[in-house]
Amino acid sequence: MRLPELSDIQAAHSRIRPFTHWTPVMSSKQLNELFGCELYFKCENFQKVGAFKFRGATNAVLSLTPEEKSRGVVTHSSGNHAAALALAARMNGITANIVMPENAPVVKKNAVAGYGAEITFCKPTLQSREEATRKIMDKTGATLVHPYDNFNVICGQGTAALELLHEKGDLDIVIAPVGGGGLMSGTSTCVKGISNDIQVIGAEPLNANDAFTSFTTGILTPSVNPLTVADGLLTSLSELTFSVIRNNVDGIFTAKEETIIDCMLLVWERMKIVIEPSSATVLAIIKENPGFFRGKKTGLIISGGNVDFRKLPF
Amino acid sequence: MRLPELSDIQAAHSRIRPFTHWTPVMSSKQLNELFGCELYFKCENFQKVGAFKFRGATNAVLSLTPEEKSRGVVTHSSGNHAAALALAARMNGITANIVMPENAPVVKKNAVAGYGAEITFCKPTLQSREEATRKIMDKTGATLVHPYDNFNVICGQGTAALELLHEKGDLDIVIAPVGGGGLMSGTSTCVKGISNDIQVIGAEPLNANDAFTSFTTGILTPSVNPLTVADGLLTSLSELTFSVIRNNVDGIFTAKEETIIDCMLLVWERMKIVIEPSSATVLAIIKENPGFFRGKKTGLIISGGNVDFRKLPF
Repeated sequence: MRLPELSDIQAAHSRIRPFTHWTPVMSSKQLNELFGCELYFKCENFQKVGAFKFRGATNAVLSLTPEEKSRGVVTHSSGNHAAALALAARMNGITANIVMPENAPVVKKNAVAGYGAEITFCKPTLQSREEATRKIMDKTGATLVHPYDNFNVICGQGTAALELLHEKGDLDIVIAPVGGGGLMSGTSTCVKGISNDIQVIGAEPLNANDAFTSFTTGILTPSVNPLTVADGLLTSLSELTFSVIRNNVDGIFTAKEETIIDCMLLVWERMKIVIEPSSATVLAIIKENPGFFRGKKTGLIISGGNVDFRKLPF
Repeated sequence: MRLPELSDIQAAHSRIRPFTHWTPVMSSKQLNELFGCELYFKCENFQKVGAFKFRGATNAVLSLTPEEKSRGVVTHSSGNHAAALALAARMNGITANIVMPENAPVVKKNAVAGYGAEITFCKPTLQSREEATRKIMDKTGATLVHPYDNFNVICGQGTAALELLHEKGDLDIVIAPVGGGGLMSGTSTCVKGISNDIQVIGAEPLNANDAFTSFTTGILTPSVNPLTVADGLLTSLSELTFSVIRNNVDGIFTAKEETIIDCMLLVWERMKIVIEPSSATVLAIIKENPGFFRGKKTGLIISGGNVDFRKLPF
């Protein structure tokens, strides 16, 4: 199992740069005063499809051979990765097949359909999802682009941290949220490749703390039926992402649901930007661990801004 | 009655520049496709206190003589202007007295108090408000800084359009929302001073359409008990702002409540920025008048992003 290196992320960045937004790094004097540290928000909520996922999906698509491109890509996802792969495929003139659970929210189905992907609905079980995906692969020869358990996807996700450190090289700490671990793997590989002096911390909901458990015990331990407002962080680490994270990450901190919601609202109110609950998790661990971060220059990867405004948690 | 000119706005900009944010101009490919025109959003939601009001308040404070400064400033407002004047005064080491109705939302009272202003509560009537203000002026000699019926405030508000046209000079149309008319007066003076070829359009809620009525009849006609979700646009034009607007503005368009709410949500969802209902009014008139704006490069002054997230209109 080859693990990504900084040079892989740099190559991914050159590859995806014509297709992606170089998102802004924002700061807020009010939040700096409130938390007693210097915060630099890498705003992937402003990325295409509203999430960092577009980086990894684009890198995966652009890394295909011409022959693979002609057979298209396939993935199973009901979230940001589905929309990201659909758009990345369309921008490169290839077919995307997306397997979605039949009970996925209509707004997500419409988003993926709007990007021109072919959607296959399945029962909302792991078995049904894998069967449907396998069937498409057998029939079309499409390449599976897993949401996070994929070398090229991880390298693409790491490009957000590359841009952050290009603009703000003197950070003490970089925090990213941890779900399946794709963003955290790319981020930590990038940061540690650039400087061993910068600490890399993962942020995870206490209610979906498989990465925390796996990291502290050293044994890959998936979550069982996790339930959190941070709906992008329900997935568990894979062997690949766990290996990268064990190598590179300095610590994983967890945050309570109410802190995540408070911090989401705080960013909306003070910074006037829309971030999703998964993104608020990175600020929530600062709120719950003020001593650790006090006085530190901290970069926060804001994963996205896709929120269902009709179902707000406050 | 001297009316502001472009040179007054340029002087105001030099004066306030060290204290204000040069806010970004944002665009959205998705919204451009949806509305069939090129939209450039001047994002005053990212201004200090979350609204353009900080520009006018700062210009008014900096235009005082040293002797006037020593006696402080006073205004009556329960909204963005109160917070703006409080912060502008604090940043310049002078006293701000704010008259607020006793039934103002706690969150607004706290914001103004947080900026160190002295608050005087009054009954929620025009008479009580004016009496309280007069009493403070008599006692302290403080200078009244009216939210919009004030030369220096208007010049400050016009600096948002100055920055917009500095970055994007080839616009066909500039739209600003109209409440008391301070922003519209400053914007239209600035735009017409730079180029007579750029159309200036005011956006107003149909439910608070005093500017539309005054503009079309030629007779200043205040609203009576207007009720709209765009709570920053409840006020009516003054003689000063009406005069400026008659001279400079090409048209005033109105928008329905449901269009304003739809457009607010659309900007939150697609652009991932928080704008207040008053700001959404500028996009709402485009939605209701697609033929007028089709194919046009249109600048939109986004007035602010102060929203009560616990009382959303959707």
